[in-house]
Amino acid sequence: MKALLLIAHGSRRKQSNIEVVMLAEKLKQKCSEHYPIIHAGFLELALPLIPEAIKKCVDDGATSIIMLPYFLNSGRHVIEDIPTIVSDTENDYPNVEIKIAPHLGNSSLMIDLLITTANATK
Amino acid sequence: MKALLLIAHGSRRKQSNIEVVMLAEKLKQKCSEHYPIIHAGFLELALPLIPEAIKKCVDDGATSIIMLPYFLNSGRHVIEDIPTIVSDTENDYPNVEIKIAPHLGNSSLMIDLLITTANATK
Repeated sequence: MKALLLIAHGSRRKQSNIEVVMLAEKLKQKCSEHYPIIHAGFLELALPLIPEAIKKCVDDGATSIIMLPYFLNSGRHVIEDIPTIVSDTENDYPNVEIKIAPHLGNSSLMIDLLITTANATK
Repeated sequence: MKALLLIAHGSRRKQSNIEVVMLAEKLKQKCSEHYPIIHAGFLELALPLIPEAIKKCVDDGATSIIMLPYFLNSGRHVIEDIPTIVSDTENDYPNVEIKIAPHLGNSSLMIDLLITTANATK
């Protein structure tokens, strides 16, 4: 069973973390057929942290987890921190396949998103 | 003449700043007809800073500038810092209209971008 795990940095500002959880909710509404399990997790400053979020997915029955870093740039968090945490955690779940998606700025759709956002600005 | 100004936070990591400048280049290739002037600017840690980036747009002939915050969440930078800098700077250019686009996480296209990114993960 496929899981999608939206990973954000986490913020001292509660509203930012709520936005991430709400985004995960929107993902649920949009693609729960393809990904029956969807959760949000945070690198730091907010809960659940990544290992706990992975556990939530596994507890829900996930056999395959796609981690989706909600980051715009290929900074240290994306290049080092998230892969290290995943690598440390996946040993606990030898029967679960965990993959990390590229950061969002890498997507060709980002250009469309930027242009649409600009054009909609009043 | 319309300008698009991509505003990122700026990073100590050079590669992240280069990614932002390259994204502005991609925007140029894609929508220079609609926005003949396109630049990138940074809130901190990288150059040009926002006031200097606005000046570049004006020097290039911009009469209208859309600032496009390359931020995922409505944090302090988006809610306070960028509007304050714009408000301080726009007095220098009374004939130039400066608008700030919403942060990217607010876009309905973000969901599509996330799903496409997840589905493309190998």
